[in-house]
Amino acid sequence: MRTLVSELAARVGTDVQVEGWVHRVRDLGGVSFLLLRDRSGICQLVLDSKPEVTLESVIRVRGIAARNEKAPGGMEVRVTSLEVLSAAAADLPFPVNQDPGKTSLESILDHRMISLRNPAILSIFRVQAAILRCFAEHLRGQGFTEIKTSKLIGTGTEGGTGLFSVNYFDSKVYLTQSPQIYKQTLVAAGFERVFEIGPAYRAEKHDTPRHINEFVSLDVEMAFIESEQDLMDLETGILAAIFSGIGDANGKDLEAWKATVPDPDLCRKIPRVSHDEAREIISRETGKKVYEIAPEGERALCDWAGKTAGIEAAFVYGYPRKSRPFYTHPAENNRSKSFDLLFRGLEITSGSMRINRYDMLMENLAAFDLNPEGMADYLSIFKYGCPPHGGFAIGLERLTQKILGLTSVKEATLFPRDRKRTRP
Amino acid sequence: MRTLVSELAARVGTDVQVEGWVHRVRDLGGVSFLLLRDRSGICQLVLDSKPEVTLESVIRVRGIAARNEKAPGGMEVRVTSLEVLSAAAADLPFPVNQDPGKTSLESILDHRMISLRNPAILSIFRVQAAILRCFAEHLRGQGFTEIKTSKLIGTGTEGGTGLFSVNYFDSKVYLTQSPQIYKQTLVAAGFERVFEIGPAYRAEKHDTPRHINEFVSLDVEMAFIESEQDLMDLETGILAAIFSGIGDANGKDLEAWKATVPDPDLCRKIPRVSHDEAREIISRETGKKVYEIAPEGERALCDWAGKTAGIEAAFVYGYPRKSRPFYTHPAENNRSKSFDLLFRGLEITSGSMRINRYDMLMENLAAFDLNPEGMADYLSIFKYGCPPHGGFAIGLERLTQKILGLTSVKEATLFPRDRKRTRP
Repeated sequence: MRTLVSELAARVGTDVQVEGWVHRVRDLGGVSFLLLRDRSGICQLVLDSKPEVTLESVIRVRGIAARNEKAPGGMEVRVTSLEVLSAAAADLPFPVNQDPGKTSLESILDHRMISLRNPAILSIFRVQAAILRCFAEHLRGQGFTEIKTSKLIGTGTEGGTGLFSVNYFDSKVYLTQSPQIYKQTLVAAGFERVFEIGPAYRAEKHDTPRHINEFVSLDVEMAFIESEQDLMDLETGILAAIFSGIGDANGKDLEAWKATVPDPDLCRKIPRVSHDEAREIISRETGKKVYEIAPEGERALCDWAGKTAGIEAAFVYGYPRKSRPFYTHPAENNRSKSFDLLFRGLEITSGSMRINRYDMLMENLAAFDLNPEGMADYLSIFKYGCPPHGGFAIGLERLTQKILGLTSVKEATLFPRDRKRTRP
Repeated sequence: MRTLVSELAARVGTDVQVEGWVHRVRDLGGVSFLLLRDRSGICQLVLDSKPEVTLESVIRVRGIAARNEKAPGGMEVRVTSLEVLSAAAADLPFPVNQDPGKTSLESILDHRMISLRNPAILSIFRVQAAILRCFAEHLRGQGFTEIKTSKLIGTGTEGGTGLFSVNYFDSKVYLTQSPQIYKQTLVAAGFERVFEIGPAYRAEKHDTPRHINEFVSLDVEMAFIESEQDLMDLETGILAAIFSGIGDANGKDLEAWKATVPDPDLCRKIPRVSHDEAREIISRETGKKVYEIAPEGERALCDWAGKTAGIEAAFVYGYPRKSRPFYTHPAENNRSKSFDLLFRGLEITSGSMRINRYDMLMENLAAFDLNPEGMADYLSIFKYGCPPHGGFAIGLERLTQKILGLTSVKEATLFPRDRKRTRP
């Protein structure tokens, strides 16, 4: 019967069987120390002789559990027998037991199958799993229904550019940029409140630390609301749930990256500034007059929020109408009922009230020089009764990146796809 | 402040505001009865005069909540004011308030944006959401970590046929058939226990009630296990959690389809029969000697299980080695350490112990006439220490279909993709 490393403290003085990977080997002549890694942590193994094992081999050992203040985690096993379950070749292509900061991102990603074994790198994805859990649990608690929609569509909702095409039997379809059309369908079909967690695709030739061509979109759509303020309220609750959940369950993972999550209670204090106010603040803070909110401005705005509200996050609302998708509800003065959330200098959310009236949608299509032909499916949502609604999407990898303070979003993606990278 | 239909009973005699869709209109001259539908249910509205509203329009009404035994759900609102939030066109293309059994599947799917409004049809996806929830919650409780992996790969793990190709900038990639390679990577990277919920693709020209070309795969992979019996134990627990969760929370949805979930306690009694035994039972039950387990045989075996164990489900293990993917752990007599789960006559799961030793994997590749060239990423998992492990995948749509007793898997798919259907 296997004992996990995390369970050893309760088994001091007894016979145990532990199983895991050889993380480190230190031979001191008469005695050898091994570090064994399993899903719950790392413990020390003490052996009388030098074992014939390579790093990363999977072993099963039996022995006596004992406390040792000097051992990692404070526990060791005095080994009586060792069995190799799977021997690793000696030419390990990636230094699993070293600080990943010493290796280039390219090398980490080229050797992804092995670099994920590094405990700090793996911890990124334990935090990501916590985000997935907290996002879904919070929304379920608010009456949201989870949906799973097709990632293959005939044409793009957000226009035909930026789409990857798929050879589908004798025809061509596209990978969805977002589940927008489907979220709205389900809201109007009667679920009123839906969320979806799924892949989304952007065929854009960016090559920056903030872009990937395939990402996981945490999508939300909600009906019978008054304004985009309701959506910011909802996102505030989601963020507080995520920060709270990670703070409770992922202490060691945060430590591995010297990261901290914001105090969940501060989420309520995230400033909400209009697009115009945001540009003024950025101009003032940077000493440079800005007309657009560029990455540098996003960082300046989050720094300002950190100083004034204690949390490096800001909602920016009221973006110019023409800078947002055609389905965004317009507002006065060529503005729109839209918002972004910037967190630690990066846009992690884009959202808006949507147009829910057929006539307004037809007008907006014309204003955007878009042709309603071929959009009959989408238009039927609004033709046959659709409540006021809105929604947003959070980029899972970007949120993970910013929580842990990672340099590139690719570090927060298990198997990132960029213009050049399609493996492993 | 809005009151949901489900909250009306607690508001009897008070002023309420309800919002939702016009489900039905009945004009009796001096008095009119409307049915209003929201995400929580249906209630009756009583008006003194005939309102000018079309079916499916979204309205907001104020009035007094009252009990009425004859009204659906036992509650009505005596309306004092009515406001149309979104008027529906009069040419509704699908009869939302009628029994969907009277409409063909083709028509339901052609008008998917509107047919989803039918309460019975929508309830299918409330059950599906419950499956997603229970699957994830159960596995998290067992120490599993959720992962999100790329759906775009350079080549297929299960061979190059049956893959949809994607035009990815200047190169060609493929949509994944399963996250197999990635699940195994994360198990070997140290998570030991992982699950993934994501789309999977099969470019197969089937046109049957049990096939779709894009489906949601509930994927599980687990290390440090002894045999495929451990995997069947795990799946037994997952199924019990799903049946229990749906039984508790989805009574009305089950009722809409006159469906029942099996008693969760009976999951432990699901028979486990070898492939040879299964063929014998099928031969005996059908009176026809069978050599392969075909759809008719799957139904016969589930009927037999229903009679003998009280639950129409059976695990079949020990499939011939050559009928399973190359990464399946071989067993004696050209068998494999594999299993399927059949439920109510349909295969809903395929799983196996995987080969975890590099040398055995190389031998198996040769036995399958597969070329290890181009598989360096996959092979590195095993070259550098990989624990014994196995896993399985449950088809979300098939499980939903069988729980509700639907005729086609396409009914249990929000936006199904088949050879001909790529919209809406």
